[in-house]
Parts: sequence; C-alpha cells; structure tokens
Amino acid sequence: MIRAAAKKVVVIGGGTGNFVVLRGLKKYSLDLTAIVSMADDGGSTGILRDELGVLPPGDARQCLVALSNSSRLMRSLMNYRFENGGLGGHSFGNLLLSALEKVTGSFEKAVEEAGKILSIKGKVIPVTTHQVRLKMILNNRKVLEGEREIYLSQEIDQGYKTIFLEPYPKVNPHVIEEIDSADLVVIGPGGLHTSLIPNLLVEGVSDAICKSDAKKVFVLNLMNRKGQTTGFKMSHYLNELVRFLGRDVFDHILINVQKAPKELIDVYANEGEAVENDLNDERIICADLLGPLAEVPRRDLLKRNLIRHDSNKLAQELMKIVDHL
Amino acid sequence: MIRAAAKKVVVIGGGTGNFVVLRGLKKYSLDLTAIVSMADDGGSTGILRDELGVLPPGDARQCLVALSNSSRLMRSLMNYRFENGGLGGHSFGNLLLSALEKVTGSFEKAVEEAGKILSIKGKVIPVTTHQVRLKMILNNRKVLEGEREIYLSQEIDQGYKTIFLEPYPKVNPHVIEEIDSADLVVIGPGGLHTSLIPNLLVEGVSDAICKSDAKKVFVLNLMNRKGQTTGFKMSHYLNELVRFLGRDVFDHILINVQKAPKELIDVYANEGEAVENDLNDERIICADLLGPLAEVPRRDLLKRNLIRHDSNKLAQELMKIVDHL
Repeated sequence: MIRAAAKKVVVIGGGTGNFVVLRGLKKYSLDLTAIVSMADDGGSTGILRDELGVLPPGDARQCLVALSNSSRLMRSLMNYRFENGGLGGHSFGNLLLSALEKVTGSFEKAVEEAGKILSIKGKVIPVTTHQVRLKMILNNRKVLEGEREIYLSQEIDQGYKTIFLEPYPKVNPHVIEEIDSADLVVIGPGGLHTSLIPNLLVEGVSDAICKSDAKKVFVLNLMNRKGQTTGFKMSHYLNELVRFLGRDVFDHILINVQKAPKELIDVYANEGEAVENDLNDERIICADLLGPLAEVPRRDLLKRNLIRHDSNKLAQELMKIVDHL
Repeated sequence: MIRAAAKKVVVIGGGTGNFVVLRGLKKYSLDLTAIVSMADDGGSTGILRDELGVLPPGDARQCLVALSNSSRLMRSLMNYRFENGGLGGHSFGNLLLSALEKVTGSFEKAVEEAGKILSIKGKVIPVTTHQVRLKMILNNRKVLEGEREIYLSQEIDQGYKTIFLEPYPKVNPHVIEEIDSADLVVIGPGGLHTSLIPNLLVEGVSDAICKSDAKKVFVLNLMNRKGQTTGFKMSHYLNELVRFLGRDVFDHILINVQKAPKELIDVYANEGEAVENDLNDERIICADLLGPLAEVPRRDLLKRNLIRHDSNKLAQELMKIVDHL
C-alpha cells in the first residue's frame, strides 16, 4: 500500500491567532509550518529588543508552544512569567529564545534549537531575520511607531494613509520555499494590522503567496476591535488583505457564525462586535467555531480576547479543505 | 557473564570544585550523585534569591552542566550570561532553575527537570531545601553575613569563633539515602568555608558521612586563598573538616604535587600559595593533577583560579580507588 505524503500546510500570522490554528492542526498528520511576523515590540518582547538587541521572541514562542509535543510542564515553563525585580514581566520562553539567539548568533537557529528542546511537530520560521519596526501614518497625519502603539491606538478605524516596516526588510528565503511547496496556506485569524499585514509587508511574501499553487484560506477574526476595526464586516477584512496581497487569492474564507453567550457579548460590548458576513460568495464557509475559555495562561486572560476560536473546531473545518486537496 | 552493578560515587561540595570532579568521573561507568551546598548568595544567584525568593541555583547549575550529555550548544546556553538591562549578569541556567522552581513549586523537582532537559548522567541533589544564609563570626567579633561576604573577607585566616547556617536547616532526606548507599564519598576540592563546610553544617549530613560504609576521599585544593586559608597545609584543611565531621573519616587524601609553571605561580603570588603536604600518613595519595586552562567560560576566568585541576587526571586517581572497592 502506498501511503500518500502528508499535506503541507503553511500558517501565516503571529500571536494568539496562530496559536489556535497550530494547536488544532497539530493533532493531524500534516507537514506544518508556522510563519511568524517579526513586528512585535510590546511587553517582554519590546524590552528584550531594546536592551539586548535581539529579534522579537514573543510570537515565535507562542507557535513553538502550540506545536510542542513535550510535557505540560515544559509548556508551562515556556509561558511562565517572572513576577519581580529586573526579570519582572519576562516570559521564560522569551528569555530562552533570546539567550539562544545570543549563543547561536542567529534568531532562526535559536527558534530551531528551541523547537528541538520542545519536541515540536513541524517548523516555526521568522518571516524575516532583519530588525524592523512597524509604522503607520494615519489620515490625520499622526505617525504610530511600533506594533504596540498601533495595537493600542483607537484611531485606526478613522483611516490610515500607509503602514510599512522600517527598514524595508528582505524576506527569509526559507519562507518563500515553504510557501512555494505548500498545499494549503492559512492566513488568520489574528490582529489585522498588527499580526497579519506585517507579514505581507516583507518583500516577496505577497508575491510568493500569489504565485504558489497552494489553496489559500482566510480565517476571519471572531470580533472587531474598537478603534481598530470598528464596524468591519468580512468585505472590509478581505479588502484590506487584498490591498497588500495585490489580488484576491483566496479559495476559501472561513467565518464563525456561532453566537456567543449573551453575558460575554455584554462584557465585550465596549471592546467590539462580532465580525459578520456581508458577502454572497461561494468561497465562504460558515461554521460554529467558538471555543470555551481554555489554554490561555490566567495572567494573559485580562489582556486578550475572552471570545475565542475553538482550536479543534477550527482544525476540523481546515481539514475538510485539506481532505479535498 | 554477570556484570557487576556500577559503583555509587557521591560527590559533596558546590561550585567549580564539584564541576571538575563530576566532569571527569562522568566518563566512567559509575552511579554518580552530586550533593550541592545551598549557601551561595553572590552575583546572579544572590539577586534571584532576593528578588524571587528562590533557592540558590548557581552551584546546582554547574553540577548539571558537568553531568550533561547534551550538545555543546545546550551547555553553552546554560552558562550564557545576559549582558544588558534588567537581565544583566544572570546566567541562563540560573533563570531556568528559578523558573522551574516557580512552575513546579520545588527546587529539588526543578533540578530534576533541568537534569532531564540536559540529559544528565547521574543525579544532582540540594543538601537542603530550606532557605538558609551562611554566617561566620570572626575572632574579632565581626559578623560576616552570607557566603559572598565570607568569600570576599581577607580576615578569616585570623581565626573565627563559629560558622553556621541560619536558620539551622533540616537535611534533604534524599541526601542521607545517597550517602548511606554510596561506595565512595568524595569531598572537595572547593572553597573550604564557602563550599565544603556549608554542607556539613546541615543537620545530619556529617553523621551520615560518619556512619556510611562508603570509603571517603578528601581531595585537597591546589592553592590557598589569601586572607582565607593563608599558609594552610594539608593538616589545617583536614583539621577544619574533622571539626565539622566530628571525626577523621577519610580513607584517602588526594593531593597534587605537580608544580605549576613559574609564570602562573608569579601571577598567583598575590592570591595565595600552593597547598603542601605536611603529614606523614599512609592514606595520602600524591599525584600530578594540574590541568590546562579549559572548560571555563571566558567571562568567569577573571574571577576564578587560573591554576586548576585536570578533570581527567583527577578522575583517573579516583577511579584507582573505585577499582579497589
């Protein structure tokens, strides 16, 4: 009996969105690659960038933990945050990646070695290995410097002139190889301007996605973020990505249609509303994708979405696509 | 053919002395256990104790690295010291042990888990799992608080009234089991008052050593330290240990008789002189034990002895004893 080679799935994003997708897909027989944005500059990651001159470890850490086959203890260790003193706020995993970068002389090598320590399934690859800062110029001419500042802005929904990485970075060549040889490329969920688009701002990435024979899926966010994507519906998200991709490359668009419990919607009212489908398009897949509160370190709950994807449900929908490849 | 069980060797100390012994013995077919002092409170270890309330990781880290079978990269990572900002001065291995202590809730468990990550041969066991401080009252009534202060004092050779751990700690019961079942117990080399004696100040340790059927070896330091052991010869070292052990338990006393190159002796002149044998005793083994400069991270060289034991030569002499058991 000839056994078919595992399908190659490339997940593009950064942060918690990537985590949920990878965590779900990890359970299937797939050749998995996570491509992570290098724009993060908040919190522990921002301090490490400033003080040590390393590349941002935070998003890569989340992907590594998502793909880890090591013990629960090792995963807890990676997410453990020191509470006091000069170490206060740093997650151990960030320190591991930064120390490995110093010892090996390369962030990409550091991620690879951390992957061995954590027995990960698949690969985690930084989209670029250059030091970059994400910048955005708003319609009112205000300049937002850094991902953190953009993430915290409440004015982005008033429109922006441009978003870019400075200096304009070369892509990590391994990223192009991965996209070229993928069977499926998954973009999203994740912060539109802070996690998804920063990958497309790296020279050559959008072009590689357009040229790849892989099927492309866009996974919509569950909720808008006030001041960032206020009132956005599917068409707005899609238009934003197409603006940076160059054309509409998506073969499938996956959106949640499950209603969140009223209590959570109320809690959330001040933050943003659920993303709705305003298109009539055969590519759209509507599914129940809401998850329970889980897998998120307690400490992070306060800062992150309470309404989140269920990694298993999301993976099941993505696997229906993979099974038809 | 019946193959004899590996002999059990228990090495007692802490710091660089332990490192050299373990590093050499690791290459032989032995059941190895390192018992480490918990008195360290200097540098990175001291800051972690103060800021995080953890047990001192530094000496345990050195033993783990000595026994590690993992890659050179992993060992470099454990000894890597951050250079800037809030992390400045911390070795990565210390942060690993402290984070593991926080995640597991136990320093002993942390050392065990770090041992798995580093694929160590043998075991590393803290002599106590209580928070203690080493104190010394000098003959001039000055009180030295903490191992670091004792280590830096230049007055100890003027005599001291007492040295003790505060609060008086219970021994880690695993330490007693290890000493009970040992075939050979090795004490030294290492700082007399800062690495060796602090183990004997823990309730029950000296008693266990005296009662154990294991053969006991004392490995003399190569050099005296000015203001600490100025002018000490073998008899002085032996008397000091016997004072805390309760009686002279040693079956063998191993001393280096190889002369260091004159240039090194000159460099060292201000620091202290070679330890000489002033006894006529059948237990004494004289051997050439000097090593080249090796295995020490560059950064540490300045602070540590330039004249050091050769781990292979030391292990060869100890194995002659093991082979006669």
